[in-house]
Amino acid sequence: MNKIKVGVVGYGVIGQRLADGVAKQEDMELIGVADVAPTLSIRALKEQGMPYDLYCSIDDTTALEQAGIPITGKLEDMLQKVDIVLDATSAGIGAKNKELYKKYGVKAIFQGGEKNEVADVFFHGYANYEKGVGADYLKLTSCNTTGLIRAVDCIHREVGVEKVAITIIRRVADPGDYHRGLTNALQVDKAPSHQAVDLMTIIPEVDATGILVHTPVTHGHIITVVATPKKDISKEELLKLFESHPRIRVVRLADGFLGNASLFRYARDLGNKRGDMYEIAIWEESIVKSGKDIMFAINIPQESVVIPENMDAIRAAMKMQLTREEGTKMTNQYLGMK
Amino acid sequence: MNKIKVGVVGYGVIGQRLADGVAKQEDMELIGVADVAPTLSIRALKEQGMPYDLYCSIDDTTALEQAGIPITGKLEDMLQKVDIVLDATSAGIGAKNKELYKKYGVKAIFQGGEKNEVADVFFHGYANYEKGVGADYLKLTSCNTTGLIRAVDCIHREVGVEKVAITIIRRVADPGDYHRGLTNALQVDKAPSHQAVDLMTIIPEVDATGILVHTPVTHGHIITVVATPKKDISKEELLKLFESHPRIRVVRLADGFLGNASLFRYARDLGNKRGDMYEIAIWEESIVKSGKDIMFAINIPQESVVIPENMDAIRAAMKMQLTREEGTKMTNQYLGMK
Amino acid sequence: MNKIKVGVVGYGVIGQRLADGVAKQEDMELIGVADVAPTLSIRALKEQGMPYDLYCSIDDTTALEQAGIPITGKLEDMLQKVDIVLDATSAGIGAKNKELYKKYGVKAIFQGGEKNEVADVFFHGYANYEKGVGADYLKLTSCNTTGLIRAVDCIHREVGVEKVAITIIRRVADPGDYHRGLTNALQVDKAPSHQAVDLMTIIPEVDATGILVHTPVTHGHIITVVATPKKDISKEELLKLFESHPRIRVVRLADGFLGNASLFRYARDLGNKRGDMYEIAIWEESIVKSGKDIMFAINIPQESVVIPENMDAIRAAMKMQLTREEGTKMTNQYLGMK
Amino acid sequence: MNKIKVGVVGYGVIGQRLADGVAKQEDMELIGVADVAPTLSIRALKEQGMPYDLYCSIDDTTALEQAGIPITGKLEDMLQKVDIVLDATSAGIGAKNKELYKKYGVKAIFQGGEKNEVADVFFHGYANYEKGVGADYLKLTSCNTTGLIRAVDCIHREVGVEKVAITIIRRVADPGDYHRGLTNALQVDKAPSHQAVDLMTIIPEVDATGILVHTPVTHGHIITVVATPKKDISKEELLKLFESHPRIRVVRLADGFLGNASLFRYARDLGNKRGDMYEIAIWEESIVKSGKDIMFAINIPQESVVIPENMDAIRAAMKMQLTREEGTKMTNQYLGMK
Repeated sequence: MNKIKVGVVGYGVIGQRLADGVAKQEDMELIGVADVAPTLSIRALKEQGMPYDLYCSIDDTTALEQAGIPITGKLEDMLQKVDIVLDATSAGIGAKNKELYKKYGVKAIFQGGEKNEVADVFFHGYANYEKGVGADYLKLTSCNTTGLIRAVDCIHREVGVEKVAITIIRRVADPGDYHRGLTNALQVDKAPSHQAVDLMTIIPEVDATGILVHTPVTHGHIITVVATPKKDISKEELLKLFESHPRIRVVRLADGFLGNASLFRYARDLGNKRGDMYEIAIWEESIVKSGKDIMFAINIPQESVVIPENMDAIRAAMKMQLTREEGTKMTNQYLGMK
Repeated sequence: MNKIKVGVVGYGVIGQRLADGVAKQEDMELIGVADVAPTLSIRALKEQGMPYDLYCSIDDTTALEQAGIPITGKLEDMLQKVDIVLDATSAGIGAKNKELYKKYGVKAIFQGGEKNEVADVFFHGYANYEKGVGADYLKLTSCNTTGLIRAVDCIHREVGVEKVAITIIRRVADPGDYHRGLTNALQVDKAPSHQAVDLMTIIPEVDATGILVHTPVTHGHIITVVATPKKDISKEELLKLFESHPRIRVVRLADGFLGNASLFRYARDLGNKRGDMYEIAIWEESIVKSGKDIMFAINIPQESVVIPENMDAIRAAMKMQLTREEGTKMTNQYLGMK
Repeated sequence: MNKIKVGVVGYGVIGQRLADGVAKQEDMELIGVADVAPTLSIRALKEQGMPYDLYCSIDDTTALEQAGIPITGKLEDMLQKVDIVLDATSAGIGAKNKELYKKYGVKAIFQGGEKNEVADVFFHGYANYEKGVGADYLKLTSCNTTGLIRAVDCIHREVGVEKVAITIIRRVADPGDYHRGLTNALQVDKAPSHQAVDLMTIIPEVDATGILVHTPVTHGHIITVVATPKKDISKEELLKLFESHPRIRVVRLADGFLGNASLFRYARDLGNKRGDMYEIAIWEESIVKSGKDIMFAINIPQESVVIPENMDAIRAAMKMQLTREEGTKMTNQYLGMK
Repeated sequence: MNKIKVGVVGYGVIGQRLADGVAKQEDMELIGVADVAPTLSIRALKEQGMPYDLYCSIDDTTALEQAGIPITGKLEDMLQKVDIVLDATSAGIGAKNKELYKKYGVKAIFQGGEKNEVADVFFHGYANYEKGVGADYLKLTSCNTTGLIRAVDCIHREVGVEKVAITIIRRVADPGDYHRGLTNALQVDKAPSHQAVDLMTIIPEVDATGILVHTPVTHGHIITVVATPKKDISKEELLKLFESHPRIRVVRLADGFLGNASLFRYARDLGNKRGDMYEIAIWEESIVKSGKDIMFAINIPQESVVIPENMDAIRAAMKMQLTREEGTKMTNQYLGMK
């Protein structure tokens, strides 16, 4: 079998995990990663003996060289070797890189920080896989939206969802971030939040609105969802639905999963690389009904949640699998999800 | 005019503010405050020259004496001088104190931490003032519920509210707390939250549910409310409604009110004692509609929000005013609310 | 008596407190404050009914006018009415403003954020008052340095200090700050910290070094000081020395002062405006000896600690008092320090 | 070769890492781990397919069974199979367990939370290895003391250390802790800190004192050390000394290691299990001299720092190696330290 050749551009919080994710897909080959400077992540790559080849995304390789980081070539060198790139650069850079991708006839998948216009398809592995099949440029939903849509799509396919109102309790920085932060403060964003708007773009039949509040923590957004299903669904049925979804993990307060920090600790104790978790978690004891409406709380592991849907995107764009069922199944299998 | 004689039992976070609130009511007289130990708040009272008389709530006065705190007498001495007490002791103590209050024929108002059974009436100044008129024992709603009900009651009286779903983003400790805290973690509580249940007790026509998430900050809970009104109401009408409520302050992100910390800073800059604010705040830019449903975010200044409703409770219990309109109006006037 | 006419330029965290401080000095008159935009602090001034006249520091008054803030005039108008200004603008702006102050023959006192070159004298009320007498341009030490020098100067005058090594555990943002912050992280600065360097500038006989670590809290830096005195001093003598200093407050863990948050709470409970405290605090139980060396921990209330020394600076610059003893005594008296 | 048979009692934050550490020692065999309840860590063991055998430390196995956790036997069963146990139970439990260890003639190593009396030797792999050789009961230094002594011992062996004064900026809780925490507060402990006292017990020639301040972060204590060496040592020599120590990692602010959070992120990016790091880190730019005194800042990865010294302790107690050089060398080799 010819493996699909993949490059990762931008080796930061998301880029590293994308590279690891690709490396786990037995039908893909990670050609290399590209970045611009000797960041901590690049230094960690060096300390590990360069398990991935590094390409320099800018002309000036001085900084990398002075830090003693081995470089395999320039970004354009990598682009000549790959079928598709996952672009995980800072917001706005992806749009510039697209010109290069075009030049080398390479397909590309952009992350949530880019504008929708950068891509032909705004993509979510479970919600609209088929739209991505064969597309040249895809943009993935952001971390919160990706996780949220997993849950909403799952209910929507079962009983139909009329509308949702979400409250995003957002972690304000990633572990290790010193360039941004919040200290003893909650911050309210202008409503509606982009996640609600994006959800409506991906699943147009669902009406959505929402408020986002930033909180001074570093791992795991928590979203509360108030959903009005088209058909009544009991708490027990909902629970079963969630439990059967390969990318949802149902957890219990009673078992010691008290919040986002418990999930991070658990993933570390599992020995998962970097303490990552691909699944969103839903707390069983958070599920309540009010009339027909259902309400529940989701944990979004912001650093790693989008990895599976990015793998799905490669599968769709490269026509490796033509249906949502097959595409997500392969991703789940290689990432070790149930 | 004979002033109503009031005592405050428990001089902690809430008790201090109740004492200050009573002192501002020109038709009430603060007889004194009672506590058990030389806490920082009691030491601050001493450093200020004992503006309020202190009574000792326990037999053993040694600790207070050794700290050089002047004591006017025992709690029972105070009870012989007052018409009514505001009990702001730790949860569970109020129920014990009630026996003493009965013995001296003194009315009492308990705080949200006590069980409902301690009182004849579960009280909120705006929502059910009339139920408290002439009652001997009242229990106030907790800080979150008090603020939440102000907003919901205000809409309910205008257009009727069918149901609400709330997300409480709770500050986990008060400024100065060392006995409790949370570090880099969000904590999910079993749903539905008691605030939703309490709301239904106070306004039985409204169906309510909710999820509470603790966050590591010290000033100001933020609640998002999804409400289904019985009659459609526009964003503009809702804004006007909130703006006309004496205990609601509409604020704007555009003016620099970015979150709970802005409100605390603003109250400090206003020169308010302790940086307190009696009003809940609602962000104009948080108000969104989804079909007929409305959604918005409230800030609850947890240390001071219940003070006005406690003053209302005295007015109701002592029959100082017989109606909600008159009772809340007097409170608002003496507390300097618009 | 002719009062000294004072203006405050920059009405932010420090500027507001300087204005309040000047207003308390019975031998000074606050002519007004100057700022550029309708910040929360300026809005709070308006809500209070403009207790201080506001002058606009920039040509364009549109933003202030649109916010409905009453303006008395332009900064240059204020400069024609004052003898001296306290410049509490953002770092770097003071140097630019100096040209204006020169033009109007107005003396000026700059804050710690400006470069030393802006001023003729780098000033601390207790350590080098006499150097400031009659000077035209003074720069105050920053908050940490001001508090630190109070303690070191106090020991140095008694027994001589050979050297100090300090560790500054720095609060990273002020309450209400959303433009900076740190979340679940400690941050180490390049050593030696500027506070150690500044201490040697102000008290050249003392050798000093130090390390600064930022921590995610908002009120009160804590500094640990390791000092080698020239003459041995017992813990008891040191305690007495600190207790007799009008700008040092000795506190005890045993009394409930467990950290910076206790001090903030205590100041709020005292009813101090904004919950401010002018004194640094030293924990009795933190004082330890190792051989001749002494070690102790100081709390620095970063928002308000420099106010007294700024008042001292006016007294020195305007020759209101010619000696350290007299100058600081008047400041202490009007600010209500022991 | 007969491998030394080791059991780990208490499978919490430290116990898990001890088990992993033992599993890496090619001359030891991990017989199993013991705990009492289905904690998250035990549940993670189950989800991984029980890589370690679990023994129940209490009579009642109901909770573990109901959670579906496979149990190999009771603690006493495990004790019959092992030569030595690492006891990582909660403070105080170790002393009780000691009776059992005696009963089965099993040597034991206790952690820093136990009282010194529990053991014959208060142990540190680098500072006093030889004292532990052949001992039956050893107690390890706590995480801060272990890391601190690495640095001080390293200097002491080179140039002699007369005295040290330390400031411990302590993380208040581990990632995932919900039972303790601090929010927006620094907390001062009674001085001198136990770490200074313990250092003097382990290295009696050095005089030590110190102050500990708790801060609201979860990974990595930072200690500043002021040390007076007996012989002058330059910054460059000190740097070389630190760089040559297998359990010290010299890092640079200039390379992006800005604080404890950078180190945690780096360890995650390295792919280290749980994001752990065995080395303490010392910031190159924090090293300063003041006269003969040296000052520097250390990062202590609190969850994992004691693992190497625990391995050393097994080697000493079991007489696997008779000297510090040989014992620590074997540990370092198997743990993959330089």
